[in-house]
Amino acid sequence: MADETLRIYVENSRERDPAYRITEEAVRRALSPVALPAIIDVRYGDERDERAIRAAHVFVAGRLDMGMLSAWGERLRIVHCTSAGVESYMPLDWLPPGAVLTNSSGVHAAKAGEFGLLAVLMLHQGIPAYATLQRQHRWQRSLSSTIAGRKVLLYGVGALGGAVAERLRPLGLDIVGVRRSGEPHPAVGRTIRPDRLADELADTDFLILACPLTPETKGAIGRAELAALKPGASVVNMARAAVMDYDALAGLLVERHLSGAILDVFDREPLPETSPLWDVPNLFITPHVSADDPHGYVDRCLAILAENLARQADGLPLRNVVDGRHGY
Amino acid sequence: MADETLRIYVENSRERDPAYRITEEAVRRALSPVALPAIIDVRYGDERDERAIRAAHVFVAGRLDMGMLSAWGERLRIVHCTSAGVESYMPLDWLPPGAVLTNSSGVHAAKAGEFGLLAVLMLHQGIPAYATLQRQHRWQRSLSSTIAGRKVLLYGVGALGGAVAERLRPLGLDIVGVRRSGEPHPAVGRTIRPDRLADELADTDFLILACPLTPETKGAIGRAELAALKPGASVVNMARAAVMDYDALAGLLVERHLSGAILDVFDREPLPETSPLWDVPNLFITPHVSADDPHGYVDRCLAILAENLARQADGLPLRNVVDGRHGY
Repeated sequence: MADETLRIYVENSRERDPAYRITEEAVRRALSPVALPAIIDVRYGDERDERAIRAAHVFVAGRLDMGMLSAWGERLRIVHCTSAGVESYMPLDWLPPGAVLTNSSGVHAAKAGEFGLLAVLMLHQGIPAYATLQRQHRWQRSLSSTIAGRKVLLYGVGALGGAVAERLRPLGLDIVGVRRSGEPHPAVGRTIRPDRLADELADTDFLILACPLTPETKGAIGRAELAALKPGASVVNMARAAVMDYDALAGLLVERHLSGAILDVFDREPLPETSPLWDVPNLFITPHVSADDPHGYVDRCLAILAENLARQADGLPLRNVVDGRHGY
Repeated sequence: MADETLRIYVENSRERDPAYRITEEAVRRALSPVALPAIIDVRYGDERDERAIRAAHVFVAGRLDMGMLSAWGERLRIVHCTSAGVESYMPLDWLPPGAVLTNSSGVHAAKAGEFGLLAVLMLHQGIPAYATLQRQHRWQRSLSSTIAGRKVLLYGVGALGGAVAERLRPLGLDIVGVRRSGEPHPAVGRTIRPDRLADELADTDFLILACPLTPETKGAIGRAELAALKPGASVVNMARAAVMDYDALAGLLVERHLSGAILDVFDREPLPETSPLWDVPNLFITPHVSADDPHGYVDRCLAILAENLARQADGLPLRNVVDGRHGY
């Protein structure tokens, strides 16, 4: 890149909510603290400029066209994805040589932390069950005590899971984190590796999924794991649908082994009107709203990019680099 | 009472959940720190012992038979009610001369604080609306940002409202309390008297009712007050149904002036199966569970009584004395 002016190409999608549109002004605003002059192209995906992409050092988009990037990305150094989940881009064999893929993991943290807090309080106070009873016009009290002392099993303690733990901690919960690295986290009482999961299920009150979707996490919470949870336990999925077996979950809710569930993510989104999940008792459905926060979203994504450009200029290691071996 | 042995008469109700039954052992346990010897009678309401009641200095029950107490309570010094709401015992003209009525205000605080936190997070993240959409199998996203900076109008800042404010405060909310006394509260940013209510409605995001039912609060939140709330605002009632006009609320929810509501209290409980409230859009119904916490409930009620007996022995003013003028 050396003495060349930095060239940044941004691709927006017309289908996406305008709140997520990246403007040239937003990019300039993000770059201003790092004082990097740049030529910035901002276009929609349906009006691609091959020449500009072939000249670009940095490509930014919410959804990546891997074939196109592989063909035209000869000068790319950074492909920055404005989402956190990158499972659909694995393996990274399409990535131009010399380029890294960076994601926006972390931009969802504040919102996701509040959603996790809400979800656990909802489960503890039986809200999914009250929603089911309301559909039937049934008044049936089930008194809960305060939440302190209950055990949360937090599957995934990255940006999302960590933010959830930080919000839950003041409630006096016993939080056990499941982490590939097994590394401790300041907001989590105890961390285990995934291979010790089975030991933790029988006394878990609330299981929260907040992991990326990777070959390792796919199907990790199957029928056996759900059935091994403490009777009356409940679950939240704010990760990806493929991490959990929803058929098994529905069965265990019907049988009342589990007392409630909140699902925010589905194999097909929007969840089709005909899905049987809508009517599963004590299952509360939210339409993939656990993490997205349009307010300041673009700025937070671009701040990660700007920081990386500054690091690159200084020869420092980049942050949020996706690791093809782990899939996130 | 002087040198006489203290006589305590406890009346339980067979209809009430056994978790709320007061045993002689529980009373002795409560009295042990204050070292007061006592003769304790514990009976159900349907096996009343007139002689023992006529001899008692202290009467304890969840529901008070005013006629009976007036007729037989000649020696009573304290009538202790194991609930917080005492609106049905007003006016206090039935109270034997020389006796005070004490309630159990405060025993609900921890649980009610958590319910208030849950309710405000539910409203902020659109949970009542998602429950309505789920009934219709409809996927309709409505992204919310984080909750910091929103305005909560807290109608009633006693034991319940204060506990709610304490739980909400860490979320960075702007909390305005409405209080008869106008006195400040450490967890509330600003306190106003009820006669200034109208000035606060137009920029309120969340209105929470947590007041006692008194002649002053009855009907305080009528059509005019609800209509004056900011468009898109939402409400929680964890006080008493008669404080708010539910017909007006339903209308404003249908018209979408208000975005959601959570009601925990109703004129008739259980809410009849035929009530139209069950189906009002974006109205979430919980069956009077916002404050009751059976875990340790009896002990917390009796601790108030024990403290008052110690104060009485020391000639100190009692706590939780119901004031007939204010109705709570």
